[in-house]
Amino acid sequence: MRKQLIEMLEARKDEMIEIRRYLHENPELSFEEENTAKYIEDFYKGKDVEIQTDVGNGHGIIVTIKGGKPGKTIGLRADFDALPIKEETGLPFASKNEGVMHACGHDGHTAYMMVLADCLIQLKDELPGTIKIIHQHAEEVPPGGAKSIVESGALDDVENIFGIHLLPIAPAGHVGYHSGFSFAGRSYFKLGVQGVGGHGSSPHMANDAIVAGAHFVTALQTIISRRLNPFDMGVITIGSFDGKGTFNVIKDRVELEGDIRYMTGDTSKIIEKEVRRIAKGIEEEFGVGCDLTYTSDYPPLYNDPEITAMVQGFLEGANDPDIKEVKESPPMSPSEDFAYYLEKIPGCYFFIGCTPKGVEKPYFNHNPKFDIDEDSLLVAAKAVGYVVCGYYGIE
Amino acid sequence: MRKQLIEMLEARKDEMIEIRRYLHENPELSFEEENTAKYIEDFYKGKDVEIQTDVGNGHGIIVTIKGGKPGKTIGLRADFDALPIKEETGLPFASKNEGVMHACGHDGHTAYMMVLADCLIQLKDELPGTIKIIHQHAEEVPPGGAKSIVESGALDDVENIFGIHLLPIAPAGHVGYHSGFSFAGRSYFKLGVQGVGGHGSSPHMANDAIVAGAHFVTALQTIISRRLNPFDMGVITIGSFDGKGTFNVIKDRVELEGDIRYMTGDTSKIIEKEVRRIAKGIEEEFGVGCDLTYTSDYPPLYNDPEITAMVQGFLEGANDPDIKEVKESPPMSPSEDFAYYLEKIPGCYFFIGCTPKGVEKPYFNHNPKFDIDEDSLLVAAKAVGYVVCGYYGIE
Amino acid sequence: MRKQLIEMLEARKDEMIEIRRYLHENPELSFEEENTAKYIEDFYKGKDVEIQTDVGNGHGIIVTIKGGKPGKTIGLRADFDALPIKEETGLPFASKNEGVMHACGHDGHTAYMMVLADCLIQLKDELPGTIKIIHQHAEEVPPGGAKSIVESGALDDVENIFGIHLLPIAPAGHVGYHSGFSFAGRSYFKLGVQGVGGHGSSPHMANDAIVAGAHFVTALQTIISRRLNPFDMGVITIGSFDGKGTFNVIKDRVELEGDIRYMTGDTSKIIEKEVRRIAKGIEEEFGVGCDLTYTSDYPPLYNDPEITAMVQGFLEGANDPDIKEVKESPPMSPSEDFAYYLEKIPGCYFFIGCTPKGVEKPYFNHNPKFDIDEDSLLVAAKAVGYVVCGYYGIE
Amino acid sequence: MRKQLIEMLEARKDEMIEIRRYLHENPELSFEEENTAKYIEDFYKGKDVEIQTDVGNGHGIIVTIKGGKPGKTIGLRADFDALPIKEETGLPFASKNEGVMHACGHDGHTAYMMVLADCLIQLKDELPGTIKIIHQHAEEVPPGGAKSIVESGALDDVENIFGIHLLPIAPAGHVGYHSGFSFAGRSYFKLGVQGVGGHGSSPHMANDAIVAGAHFVTALQTIISRRLNPFDMGVITIGSFDGKGTFNVIKDRVELEGDIRYMTGDTSKIIEKEVRRIAKGIEEEFGVGCDLTYTSDYPPLYNDPEITAMVQGFLEGANDPDIKEVKESPPMSPSEDFAYYLEKIPGCYFFIGCTPKGVEKPYFNHNPKFDIDEDSLLVAAKAVGYVVCGYYGIE
Repeated sequence: MRKQLIEMLEARKDEMIEIRRYLHENPELSFEEENTAKYIEDFYKGKDVEIQTDVGNGHGIIVTIKGGKPGKTIGLRADFDALPIKEETGLPFASKNEGVMHACGHDGHTAYMMVLADCLIQLKDELPGTIKIIHQHAEEVPPGGAKSIVESGALDDVENIFGIHLLPIAPAGHVGYHSGFSFAGRSYFKLGVQGVGGHGSSPHMANDAIVAGAHFVTALQTIISRRLNPFDMGVITIGSFDGKGTFNVIKDRVELEGDIRYMTGDTSKIIEKEVRRIAKGIEEEFGVGCDLTYTSDYPPLYNDPEITAMVQGFLEGANDPDIKEVKESPPMSPSEDFAYYLEKIPGCYFFIGCTPKGVEKPYFNHNPKFDIDEDSLLVAAKAVGYVVCGYYGIE
Repeated sequence: MRKQLIEMLEARKDEMIEIRRYLHENPELSFEEENTAKYIEDFYKGKDVEIQTDVGNGHGIIVTIKGGKPGKTIGLRADFDALPIKEETGLPFASKNEGVMHACGHDGHTAYMMVLADCLIQLKDELPGTIKIIHQHAEEVPPGGAKSIVESGALDDVENIFGIHLLPIAPAGHVGYHSGFSFAGRSYFKLGVQGVGGHGSSPHMANDAIVAGAHFVTALQTIISRRLNPFDMGVITIGSFDGKGTFNVIKDRVELEGDIRYMTGDTSKIIEKEVRRIAKGIEEEFGVGCDLTYTSDYPPLYNDPEITAMVQGFLEGANDPDIKEVKESPPMSPSEDFAYYLEKIPGCYFFIGCTPKGVEKPYFNHNPKFDIDEDSLLVAAKAVGYVVCGYYGIE
Repeated sequence: MRKQLIEMLEARKDEMIEIRRYLHENPELSFEEENTAKYIEDFYKGKDVEIQTDVGNGHGIIVTIKGGKPGKTIGLRADFDALPIKEETGLPFASKNEGVMHACGHDGHTAYMMVLADCLIQLKDELPGTIKIIHQHAEEVPPGGAKSIVESGALDDVENIFGIHLLPIAPAGHVGYHSGFSFAGRSYFKLGVQGVGGHGSSPHMANDAIVAGAHFVTALQTIISRRLNPFDMGVITIGSFDGKGTFNVIKDRVELEGDIRYMTGDTSKIIEKEVRRIAKGIEEEFGVGCDLTYTSDYPPLYNDPEITAMVQGFLEGANDPDIKEVKESPPMSPSEDFAYYLEKIPGCYFFIGCTPKGVEKPYFNHNPKFDIDEDSLLVAAKAVGYVVCGYYGIE
Repeated sequence: MRKQLIEMLEARKDEMIEIRRYLHENPELSFEEENTAKYIEDFYKGKDVEIQTDVGNGHGIIVTIKGGKPGKTIGLRADFDALPIKEETGLPFASKNEGVMHACGHDGHTAYMMVLADCLIQLKDELPGTIKIIHQHAEEVPPGGAKSIVESGALDDVENIFGIHLLPIAPAGHVGYHSGFSFAGRSYFKLGVQGVGGHGSSPHMANDAIVAGAHFVTALQTIISRRLNPFDMGVITIGSFDGKGTFNVIKDRVELEGDIRYMTGDTSKIIEKEVRRIAKGIEEEFGVGCDLTYTSDYPPLYNDPEITAMVQGFLEGANDPDIKEVKESPPMSPSEDFAYYLEKIPGCYFFIGCTPKGVEKPYFNHNPKFDIDEDSLLVAAKAVGYVVCGYYGIE
């Protein structure tokens, strides 16, 4: 069956590209992917599968492929939401939904997965287990779709889960993996610093929120520099210091927003504790009020080392000319809500290279000029196909 | 003539109030006071005076009252522009020009001055000298009207100059004076801190402008705390820290605006030098680009000590029941473009109390609820009248 | 009697110089002025006065000159302690007590006062009142001698008090005065910042006291720059940041010492409150322990305006060729424990110029090369003599 | 031969302990280890080896064991210097050299190595290669002995090198290894901040070095928090802020010392560049002079991955009951001059557990109460013995 699957995928490469281009032309924002979900649902309609729609907190779809033989249940996930970015690729199939763009490759994820799923459906009599295809909505916007899908119970019987991400840092043919913590977890905070406004010439009658906010930013640096184990990854970025005002009026309030990254839950806890401490200290120190909202959105993504080693083995053993290289990648500082699946279900999330042909410095995901080599779709389909076959011991 | 003048003023108190209310109802922004200027010009038309209009860089008016006897020339100044403030007084004669308000008392300044000028015109045969009534536009917005009026040459023959400001910090009947430096000078700067934007999780690929800006604010405090003679007045307020961004994107640029106050030119120079130095230091320290625009607008206002003592003497000697108290006031941190006159022409600028009757905590100038006790108009007219009489030795 | 007194002083100018040189050669530290006190006591022994020794918390001496006629009681104060400074003047009568030096002019204060007192004793029959000569110990070291002398009750009957300080900022012949707050008050604090030591490579296992201390210093600047009325004088100097350690060991504790100056009790209170607040904020912000000792030592020195005007009048009216100039001086940022007398007893403390002849840039008080023009001793004696005469209406 | 070697080591366990105790009782500081070197030299005298003394910049000794058969040359290193620490163990064989202590386990390193070397000498006829025993002086004090030994050329023919460190973080029987960068590199800087001293009350006449130094410390934190790749290890500790002064005198100069750690040369370069940049920025910002001395002492220690895997294999394959556990360790933030050997010669430096029996929280290296389980000496000897045998393919 393995050979058959791979041949079927090769034969349907153009279809993958077609689907991807359709999706690319018609992107929808997270939680608003109504038409995309409809399109996916329609694709599966009439096939011998169970289709669940509106799974989780949005337009999530789970397609259950019941194999002809008993066996384990696994999940394969592809996300389908787009980003609030104005496309600048100039592609003939560029977004027709102005200001919305598939700039993260989710169009490709969905395209390869639909074709792969269809092939697996056709071969399912030989399949010793059950495969749940998870077409996930809203990966880009916390709290994301993954968490709610896990909480829905729809994956309670899934024993292992797999997924991929297209990354332009390597050419099509490259597959990357990282064992253990692989994507950073992320927290967010919003801090309002409330002082007392006043005339620019009379600081003693006011309480300057900008000065207090500046000291907060300065003190915050010490969390990374002095509180973390220097071998642990941690980032705190103040991405917004909203203190626009009138030059000769002492500002009564500033609002800061922070982005926090870490590779372990322990680091997350230390940072949260220290941010809270510093906010409280600034309150005391400057007599201002600090209202702090602190939320953790995506946990660090943890690839199970055994399953990752297994995936690596399957892919290296495939000897497929389209899979030119299977390499360990470094961990990455972005975050990914696949982490929620992996909190509950051991699995592996890995990377598929997709540098556009002939491009030396490819635009990274989320760039308005982000593009992929469409050959990578077949690589993705094959790679996940090999993992499925390997997992079930299908020759 | 002195007695006559005072009686005439007393008789026309209601007219002052009427004019003030008309002006209050019809405020115009600095440099846009077309109707106000027209109204003033019309008032003087047909009287035996020389009227110059459009003096300086706007709608300035100078009315020259030539006395019947030879003598010195003095200037009396009243400003007539309003502020971009939405009135909240609820007065029956509140602003009909939405978003514009006489919240600084210039309506009162103009009202008393028109009546006083008219009385002086009537009595001018006995006047041993020439009085230039300066109805000044645009006091509120640098570069202001005063500077340009001085530069126009229209006051080249003026030997001394006087003016008053209504201040709600004392009741009607109070007159305040301060010898020497009395209002702060003011400078302004705008600093752009240009870093390099980037993904919130990858500070090493970017250069965080918010962090550099925060250190600028922190370092800036040392100018006041460590560079100035502790007996000298100086203020640096960062009124705007414009760093609004997206929480998970490292900010590439922030823009700060600063307001600077001082009582002497020396202090002004020290502060400017140090602000420039710190901006340059931040450039080096954080590898950012700092583009700094630094301008001085109003100089410190200097009341000539001898003339101020003279004014004090005239007012104390008046024994007028309406002038209940003549007191030394502390210097004030706001700025006032009357300072430009006093740079060239020795004179005195003093305060007329105007706390609304029955109010314990009056709203200060520039507040949307700012109001005055209209009795203060007569006090102002009398006080300036006494100064004129005293100056010319008129009994 | 006034003429007689002045002539007696002129005749004994050399004696003043001699006494001053003797004292200069034999300086003693604050609270250790045993021999100096003995020397002064011996001078008065056998004269028709009451001598109190060991007044207050040290070697203070009060010599009471009871006049022949009834009248008010006044105090005249001269301090006699020296400083822990190694003299570098190279004078023939330089200190023989190595490491101790009369670098603040107290030798001169004492010298002129002894001669003046002796003259007053000789003329006391004509004196309509009582003069208490206060030879004060320990001016240089808080809590100083003045406070304890006041508390001893020895001055309870004193109605007004006078004193002078030699200042090299003007030549001999110059007398300076300032009405109102004239010398700064002073507070002192010691802050221990207690963190947790550790290996330089493992900040997360320690808690760095140096980083917390540095943030304290940085935040402290905002008290002067943002909390005080910009017209009010205030200084906070961290004179000691004791954080010497081993480069590769995280410092567990640093100790800071601060010096605070202000011209009013209100400013003193604001600063103390804010220093305490920031110390508490740093505790919270960095999780360190802050032990803060805060003491006020000398209050601001307040010259009674009426008495100061009186002093000015007496000196200007003296028409003495040795008193060449009587001028208003600016307030001074150093502190002086004469302030304690003035808290209870209205009076005036004024300045006697003493720039050494031919010197353009004189060394200031407390410099190892500090020196005086000895002509200033006679000026001091005469000035205080004129004040006494004027005060008692002695022609 | 392998079995024989292990049996010989087991038989001489007590001798190892004896030697270790002798060395422990007679510690000598880095570069002053005259008697220790003599003791080692004497041990080898008369044996069939070549002995080089005074190798490198101190008392280094190289003992060359030429095997009976041709083959590769390897190095085995043990360091023998002690620390300036006052021992507090209370051991019967505690240091007799007051203030000097073997608190880092070098006594144990030397003891096991001497016995192991002697056994290898006895078995050398069967040895297919040459072993250089490196008894190294001065590991604790930069520039250390290793660098100079490498530079001496004495190891030019060495193809691989091995060494161990006793670590109390695991019990005797535990062997730890880490592939790649394993110990941090270290740099050091000294920064003098030169301002201008002055009276505490007159900041404008001085230039406060403490304030500038505090801002340096604050700004420095941003190097770790914003300049480094968050996945890279980096530490900057200011271990000394020498700013002790007199509370009421503005400090003219402070001296700071910094300790810097990193795991790669690239990180080292970034940190140095940024420290220099900030020092220069502070100069500009505060108008102070910054004299900065910056030196790198030990590079990061890099264990060759292939050789480390080999070592792991040999030890796991040994099946020796004394070697209970062979485990990957995390990298460590301290520094070690073995790194210099590994810059030139691929090799592996690994850890031997030595928690004293019955102790739950052992004192770490460099603590005055540091102690070891002497059973670890045999473990060390065996472990290195197995590596030698494995390396040469000796059964």
